[in-house]
Amino acid sequence: MAELNATIETTLKTLLKTKKYPAAKDVLVTLNSVDVAAVLENVDEDVAVLLFRLLPKELAAESFVEMNPDLQETLIRGFSDRELREVLSELYVDDAVDLVEEMPANVVKRILAQADPGMRKDINALLRYPENSAGSIMTTEYVSLRPEMTVDEAIARIRKTAVDKETIYTCYVTENRRLLGVLPLKNLFLAKDDSLRISDIMDRNVVAVHTNDDREEIAQLLSKYDYLALPVLDGGDRMVGIITFDDAMDVIEEETTEDIERMAAMLPSEKEYLRASAFDVFRQRIPWLMLLMVSATFTGMIITRFENALAAQVVLTAFIPMLMDTGGNSGSQASVTIIRALSLGEVEFKNLAAVIWKEIRTAVLCGVCLAAVCFAKIMLIDRMLLGNADVTVTVALVVCVALAVTVLVAKVIGCIFPMVASRLGFDPAVMSSPFITTVVDALSLLVYFGFARMLLLS
Amino acid sequence: MAELNATIETTLKTLLKTKKYPAAKDVLVTLNSVDVAAVLENVDEDVAVLLFRLLPKELAAESFVEMNPDLQETLIRGFSDRELREVLSELYVDDAVDLVEEMPANVVKRILAQADPGMRKDINALLRYPENSAGSIMTTEYVSLRPEMTVDEAIARIRKTAVDKETIYTCYVTENRRLLGVLPLKNLFLAKDDSLRISDIMDRNVVAVHTNDDREEIAQLLSKYDYLALPVLDGGDRMVGIITFDDAMDVIEEETTEDIERMAAMLPSEKEYLRASAFDVFRQRIPWLMLLMVSATFTGMIITRFENALAAQVVLTAFIPMLMDTGGNSGSQASVTIIRALSLGEVEFKNLAAVIWKEIRTAVLCGVCLAAVCFAKIMLIDRMLLGNADVTVTVALVVCVALAVTVLVAKVIGCIFPMVASRLGFDPAVMSSPFITTVVDALSLLVYFGFARMLLLS
Repeated sequence: MAELNATIETTLKTLLKTKKYPAAKDVLVTLNSVDVAAVLENVDEDVAVLLFRLLPKELAAESFVEMNPDLQETLIRGFSDRELREVLSELYVDDAVDLVEEMPANVVKRILAQADPGMRKDINALLRYPENSAGSIMTTEYVSLRPEMTVDEAIARIRKTAVDKETIYTCYVTENRRLLGVLPLKNLFLAKDDSLRISDIMDRNVVAVHTNDDREEIAQLLSKYDYLALPVLDGGDRMVGIITFDDAMDVIEEETTEDIERMAAMLPSEKEYLRASAFDVFRQRIPWLMLLMVSATFTGMIITRFENALAAQVVLTAFIPMLMDTGGNSGSQASVTIIRALSLGEVEFKNLAAVIWKEIRTAVLCGVCLAAVCFAKIMLIDRMLLGNADVTVTVALVVCVALAVTVLVAKVIGCIFPMVASRLGFDPAVMSSPFITTVVDALSLLVYFGFARMLLLS
Repeated sequence: MAELNATIETTLKTLLKTKKYPAAKDVLVTLNSVDVAAVLENVDEDVAVLLFRLLPKELAAESFVEMNPDLQETLIRGFSDRELREVLSELYVDDAVDLVEEMPANVVKRILAQADPGMRKDINALLRYPENSAGSIMTTEYVSLRPEMTVDEAIARIRKTAVDKETIYTCYVTENRRLLGVLPLKNLFLAKDDSLRISDIMDRNVVAVHTNDDREEIAQLLSKYDYLALPVLDGGDRMVGIITFDDAMDVIEEETTEDIERMAAMLPSEKEYLRASAFDVFRQRIPWLMLLMVSATFTGMIITRFENALAAQVVLTAFIPMLMDTGGNSGSQASVTIIRALSLGEVEFKNLAAVIWKEIRTAVLCGVCLAAVCFAKIMLIDRMLLGNADVTVTVALVVCVALAVTVLVAKVIGCIFPMVASRLGFDPAVMSSPFITTVVDALSLLVYFGFARMLLLS
């Protein structure tokens, strides 16, 4: 299909260059809304506005949802009030809320003025839910059935209302907005007798979430149970909306990106890399760089304190980078593993003892192997091959013992820090590899110079 | 719901402790298959086997799919041939394939012997697809319609065959196994006239993938277009299966975990952390630790080469950790950002120039800020507060200029390496932060000592 898309791209480019817009429209109509949005994002603004106006209303609205906020804003600013009303009337409420959240205040005012009163009310209600809550990503357009309906009546109701619903494949059985059960369309379809009651065939064992629940946990829940959608209840346990699998996939992608950014000591970004300015990227990266640079004062102080020892045995300096890097790497391996396991729910705080014990055993295995190879390497390469006479057996011993201890310390710290952070209610990913590296650096130098003083300088 | 689950857990524990197995079964029947699997994984093996036998056939099979391979193997070893046949007959082909891939050879032999001939053929066909290909994760159980069917006939066909299909919500219109179009069940449901032909209402604009396509790209495609399922074609463009959104979510989760592990210099693991032995974890972590430790020989050599300079100005040593860490952190920030953007498809190799230019500008901003603060910090803290007279203005200048250059080098290398790796067909995540840190370490030391020699030791 990749080739096919490429061909269409070339065709479209030619049509646009020769200003054959109606023909370009006819090609666009054969595309998916995601691809239409991508095409409009890549042409000049005025061409985008022109093409958008030529599209059929439904496709126009669907592709509008998929565009980046800059293009959305350009289009809205070019819309007449009637055009804006038409686009809004085709949007699902959750998409309208996303739009309102992205636009500047004066555009939002126009959007709310042109939305029909029902939608305006829904948008305002959804906007009040806290960021990252279930309420903020749910949609209010779901199929609700009543328990006393027959299969026949339910099918008729779904056919009548389906157009406006985000999904019809999972239906919810409610009475006075209390959720009684859930009914996959498949089961309705498979019902042997059209006169059966919904209450007889619905599944009463419902997994539901609340409006204030964390959106990441909900996305993991959806992924774990392979549901198409999850019902959302308000504080009084009344059903107010649903969250669908496609929103869950987006949430997981965003949250994972945030985790990865935090692990690499960056603030989470709002924009895609290529759309962010260099200054955006700078603001995302400088805080941690600055903090970690300043905190390296401690490692500097440790070295200064042992300056005399180092002056006497300058050869010790040569092994500082190797020790620090191996400690940092060992620590990140542990912390990254634990952060990921925590975010997937594979590990919880109650597993702390088991985790520490596993890391200790792993660290001993790694430490012993590394120390042995390091000893051989120092003797063969540094001493014999490079002929550095300062590298004595005692120096090699000091380096290797310090190495093994550093690996142990790094792995234990690397697993404990994220678990404690999650226990205290922080995102464990703030216990980033660079942060752990800084702590491990200081400790590894103390261990190194400690052994050096004991074995070399006494 | 969390509280509710907790209560059920307590109830179940009590029932099992008092050996009230039939009552425990009645409780289990009210649970979701994922939760049933979790319960069985957490009881003694013999109790698990006993409870499994008490479950209704369908729930038993559904929860069987969700269990970890160890428990699956235990259960299969305890099954009679008839029991094994029953469980197998309830599985979808893709789940049966997953099972066969996880079990030891003698268990696989029994499974294939007991599967019915049609399923055995399908399992063998799917097993032949390469690992990580679309073919290896697809299922062959989809709804196919013929273009000349009426809406009525199509609905009748779906109702007749739905039980055995993994999803009925997206139907595929085929003729001689050629894919002509796709028809969401919603559209079938909304058709105004029951005598319309399928060919009139189907969507001819189909996104399809091929059996040998990479499973990660397909998962991203599903996520991008918010599809419930994607059709899979063979080399001759005949339709052979579908991939559903839940499998895509699992693929994305696995591939992201692999990426994260690679970024932290680990080999990807097959097992969940708590289920892996310390030796498993060791094998996953030692190769990169070893390689990076040995390659730190170069940084050691650089320091040795400048040993005389260092002996004359021991104060320089104190800033080595800060320089190396800041360089490493700057490099990982860039590499991790680019690796993630590559894997989400936000950045491609053709953007190389734009990426380098953005990283250069970001690096200049970061470098200037860091150098300025570092200079102030050295003067105020190291010189005045700590009273280290060796820290002259020239020393501070050398450190700060080296710092700014290191940040620039680190960010440029951090963005180029992953992009080149992806261009060469490697996973960009192998250009892990620790690997880039090792390269940046050596370069930053060269820059540092270079400036030191120019400004301090001439």
